[in-house]
Amino acid sequence: MRYLAKISYDGSKYKGYQKQPNTKTIQGELERVLNVINHTFVNVHGSGRTDAGVHAFGQMIHFDLIVDMNEKEVKKAMNSLLSPDIYVRAVTIVNDDFHARFDVRKKEYIYQLNMGEYDPIQKDYVYQYNQELDVKAINKAMMYLKGEHNFRSFTKVDEEKESYVRNIYEAKIQKDGNFLIFTFIGNGFMRYMVRNLVGTLIEVGEGKRKPQEIDEILKAEDRKMAGKTAPACGLYLKAVSYE
Amino acid sequence: MRYLAKISYDGSKYKGYQKQPNTKTIQGELERVLNVINHTFVNVHGSGRTDAGVHAFGQMIHFDLIVDMNEKEVKKAMNSLLSPDIYVRAVTIVNDDFHARFDVRKKEYIYQLNMGEYDPIQKDYVYQYNQELDVKAINKAMMYLKGEHNFRSFTKVDEEKESYVRNIYEAKIQKDGNFLIFTFIGNGFMRYMVRNLVGTLIEVGEGKRKPQEIDEILKAEDRKMAGKTAPACGLYLKAVSYE
Repeated sequence: MRYLAKISYDGSKYKGYQKQPNTKTIQGELERVLNVINHTFVNVHGSGRTDAGVHAFGQMIHFDLIVDMNEKEVKKAMNSLLSPDIYVRAVTIVNDDFHARFDVRKKEYIYQLNMGEYDPIQKDYVYQYNQELDVKAINKAMMYLKGEHNFRSFTKVDEEKESYVRNIYEAKIQKDGNFLIFTFIGNGFMRYMVRNLVGTLIEVGEGKRKPQEIDEILKAEDRKMAGKTAPACGLYLKAVSYE
Repeated sequence: MRYLAKISYDGSKYKGYQKQPNTKTIQGELERVLNVINHTFVNVHGSGRTDAGVHAFGQMIHFDLIVDMNEKEVKKAMNSLLSPDIYVRAVTIVNDDFHARFDVRKKEYIYQLNMGEYDPIQKDYVYQYNQELDVKAINKAMMYLKGEHNFRSFTKVDEEKESYVRNIYEAKIQKDGNFLIFTFIGNGFMRYMVRNLVGTLIEVGEGKRKPQEIDEILKAEDRKMAGKTAPACGLYLKAVSYE
């Protein structure tokens, strides 16, 4: 039976989603627990990787079990065995041809930034920028991101892809007191893409770049044109949608 | 020169405020840093202890330095040397007879509880109760706490005190979605007192106790009458006031 699960995790405690030998990873911890439940090896397929320090509210994974368990039982068994840093929010049985990565239709990421005083309690969960930013300028800049674009300027330099074209359905910024929340919804995001977008938007908010430069950077298709990579701690995979 | 400093810290990374040999404590970390700044031993006096896992937004400490530094310089020097889990929010020069503990007039604690779904990201910062509570009943129960009472029933059993009488100026509960925030303002709080109050109030919210039982427990002056100690992770020392 194939199961689809929605999970949340505290990424600050792991070296990223993807399994690596002798390293604490989300996938590694999920497979450890499912191996116990299934009494044999289980391969966990995620909707995509998240890097070290990146969090998730709604990461999606699929896996096959040979033991006969219903959705509730799988959820309960996993949560009773998992580290408290990872939580299974929901489990549903899916068709055998469903794939958590290939069938993704939409992903939503948010990025949290604190413009106010440094807060030690949130240091692993909100980027402690601790200075004012021009939110209006950032908002203007984000308009250029919406729609279908080649995002080569905003991904990892050594990333060789068939296509760098992605469709951004929503790109917005909200201000809540001293907190900024960036939201990005699109059909897919490449490695470091959201953090490179946020890092470049921060430079717009600092007045170092004009909002319309975002358009020029997109057209250049050159990573060197974009800004710095924003820290991992502010980034959350919020939701993944399927057909 | 005597300095008063307001500090915030992530208590989940420490074995409590008070210095202990070979243990990571808030006081120990503060003294380590001040010893470097002052080139000789500095004794740090806190407004009171916080237990392992308890956080602070506004803990107050005083200390004497022999080096000649102004308030800004002391703040900057401390923050550049401290672990990122502790932050000095403000430093002011005070009279030589000022004492961070003996001169306290008022303290404010808050306690955060999540009635909603388990959230791994907040597990060290909000008590993951993950079930509904009767907020109206808790609110009613908290009325009995206001004013001057003997709080012997709500403190550590082996605590021998001259007086168990404390004055609670404010005791209230706020609901924000699935989050509950308990606020307690008083002239002083004994060891485990806030956590024992919250633990007992949770039992009221569960329907296991009637709101008016709070009054009976206070009058009994017997720790066995009160409820369980709520976990440390939800507790924050928010503010300490002086004359």
